[in-house]
Amino acid sequence: MNTTNNIKNITVNKPLKLDCGETINNFPIAYETYGSLNEKKDNAILVFHALTGDQFVSGTNPITKKDGWWSYAVGPNKAIDTNKYFVICANVIGGCMGSYGPSNVDPNTNKILGTNFPIITINDMVNAQYNLLGFFKIDQLFCVAGGSMGGMQVLQFVANFPDKAKIAIPIACTASHSAQNIAFNELGRQSIMADSNWLSGNYSNEKSNPDKGLAVARMAAHITYLSKNGLQEKFGRKLQERDDLKFGFDADFQIESYLRYQGSVFVDRFDANSYLYITRAMDYFDLIKQYDGNLSKAFVNSKTKFFVISFTSDWLYPTSENKEIVIALNAIGADVGFVEIETDKGHDSFLLDVPEFLKTLKSFINASYLKVK
Amino acid sequence: MNTTNNIKNITVNKPLKLDCGETINNFPIAYETYGSLNEKKDNAILVFHALTGDQFVSGTNPITKKDGWWSYAVGPNKAIDTNKYFVICANVIGGCMGSYGPSNVDPNTNKILGTNFPIITINDMVNAQYNLLGFFKIDQLFCVAGGSMGGMQVLQFVANFPDKAKIAIPIACTASHSAQNIAFNELGRQSIMADSNWLSGNYSNEKSNPDKGLAVARMAAHITYLSKNGLQEKFGRKLQERDDLKFGFDADFQIESYLRYQGSVFVDRFDANSYLYITRAMDYFDLIKQYDGNLSKAFVNSKTKFFVISFTSDWLYPTSENKEIVIALNAIGADVGFVEIETDKGHDSFLLDVPEFLKTLKSFINASYLKVK
Repeated sequence: MNTTNNIKNITVNKPLKLDCGETINNFPIAYETYGSLNEKKDNAILVFHALTGDQFVSGTNPITKKDGWWSYAVGPNKAIDTNKYFVICANVIGGCMGSYGPSNVDPNTNKILGTNFPIITINDMVNAQYNLLGFFKIDQLFCVAGGSMGGMQVLQFVANFPDKAKIAIPIACTASHSAQNIAFNELGRQSIMADSNWLSGNYSNEKSNPDKGLAVARMAAHITYLSKNGLQEKFGRKLQERDDLKFGFDADFQIESYLRYQGSVFVDRFDANSYLYITRAMDYFDLIKQYDGNLSKAFVNSKTKFFVISFTSDWLYPTSENKEIVIALNAIGADVGFVEIETDKGHDSFLLDVPEFLKTLKSFINASYLKVK
Repeated sequence: MNTTNNIKNITVNKPLKLDCGETINNFPIAYETYGSLNEKKDNAILVFHALTGDQFVSGTNPITKKDGWWSYAVGPNKAIDTNKYFVICANVIGGCMGSYGPSNVDPNTNKILGTNFPIITINDMVNAQYNLLGFFKIDQLFCVAGGSMGGMQVLQFVANFPDKAKIAIPIACTASHSAQNIAFNELGRQSIMADSNWLSGNYSNEKSNPDKGLAVARMAAHITYLSKNGLQEKFGRKLQERDDLKFGFDADFQIESYLRYQGSVFVDRFDANSYLYITRAMDYFDLIKQYDGNLSKAFVNSKTKFFVISFTSDWLYPTSENKEIVIALNAIGADVGFVEIETDKGHDSFLLDVPEFLKTLKSFINASYLKVK
């Protein structure tokens, strides 16, 4: 284990063959843990992060100095109670918080990889993170959980390692990335690549940064994380620190100011190439196709107990797509629960203070732990 | 009347005070007509175009050589039958197809105006186009009609000129631009302004062009014009001329290729600054606020007969927002009809071959003409 700049990581020294055909080896997986692994090693929860997340689930992120991305759900006495459970989260490969990604240096050339980094998939991410079980000498996880792209990893994990998690909680996700979601991701990628500072992905070696393109990509994505009604309720046509319209292109409306802010803070913490690679992995995700058009086959060898959660106002990964997972599990008589949470907070609901969601999550985890331990 | 490059225009030589406070004079309004004005001059239909439309409603657009933007609805024997009606359509001010806009030259400096062009509103657009009635010596239009931003102009026209149209058909629009729609427009503007070739709007004088930023703006908008289900049905995860994923950032999926194409053809026909100005006008549109929070007041002095049309899968201007217009009209006992068309074609439905829509539009117009003439 190495710790640099508050980032813990393991070096995987076992070849990993990626879906693209390349093999990687001796690569870092950065991770963080919360709580303690008990003696029986039966209380470990592996949390998978979403597109722009990282391993800093709870507490203060040591890099950004902000709250961890799942602070509402994870921590002492929270839905995922770190007084009881040992929570592990790793930065996905392709990411930019210490795991092997496009901002790593190629030891052969001493240059930052950029777009010489191989294309990775959700399957590759999950296979890479599987090495953490060996590192912690955990034979079986109590739980795998995650929202959005984290949920995709939950599904892929159970498909790849059918006996390695007692329970699985995919939240606000899909088994197959939709055309609209590919479209929004492609929009983000095109925005980054349109930035003249992107330099075909070689910006870091040239001390450049496609921050404007990345900010626009983030703005686009951010709109999709919120519901139309939620936006109307929160912002409507409220003006930004002014009594009337200014008849110019400055941010007259609060929603404009808010989006610009979201874009500007994002570029300080995220790498543009990582954004390209991770969105690509999401777009490539199609567990249905992986299992010959029959999603049930992905889970047929597993005894993992599932709990699928969706949100009424999530139009990015709507309830209908989450239900497809439930239907596939039901078709093989798997143990599966499902709940749709009523909220106007959109796809972001899983990250926010949505009491009904947090209560449901907590109850399911605690009840399951009593049953399966 | 002047005709240059197949573009007809009138020069308005009467001062027009804009909402921003500036006054413009001696400015061009480019227009096109279809069919013939009858002797009684009671068969004129003024069509208003949407964000990226122009005056070339039907037939072949002489500039782009493609079909006019409303060819499905307007033409001989079509829903708006140019054998019977005299259809007029003008390019909005702020546009780039011959009407006064940011790509015009400032006679004082001999430079292209760019962002020295004044901010314009839907109200300004409508007031400018009103001059066409004088030019054609039409005392009262039979009909005003338009979809999306065209629908906003319909509403504003009746509010400003309550006795100048016998019937009004606002389609897939709103009386007050929503936070989500402002957000998507702001995204487009930020994308253009992020392009290093935008040069603070001065690109034309510098022989530059923010075409990449404009293409991304168009891609973003295009996604909002289609429904999630429509995209899934049409594209799903179909691959673009390849048997399998290529593990790169080229367009693997048809939806990616389609969006890139939409972006690339758009930049050939549209001016980036016009995109900024027209989206700004849409965002500023709030007829409810103009009438002190009571939309009914906008129409209280009018005898115009309304017909409001919305589409089930339009998430940009959903039925609920169109219904607000109907409710405001009902509240003052106005003559108003309403229909929601079932379709999965999204906001774009008004531009497409949606038979139920076209049939409904045709019936209403023809029946109304018999009654009111």
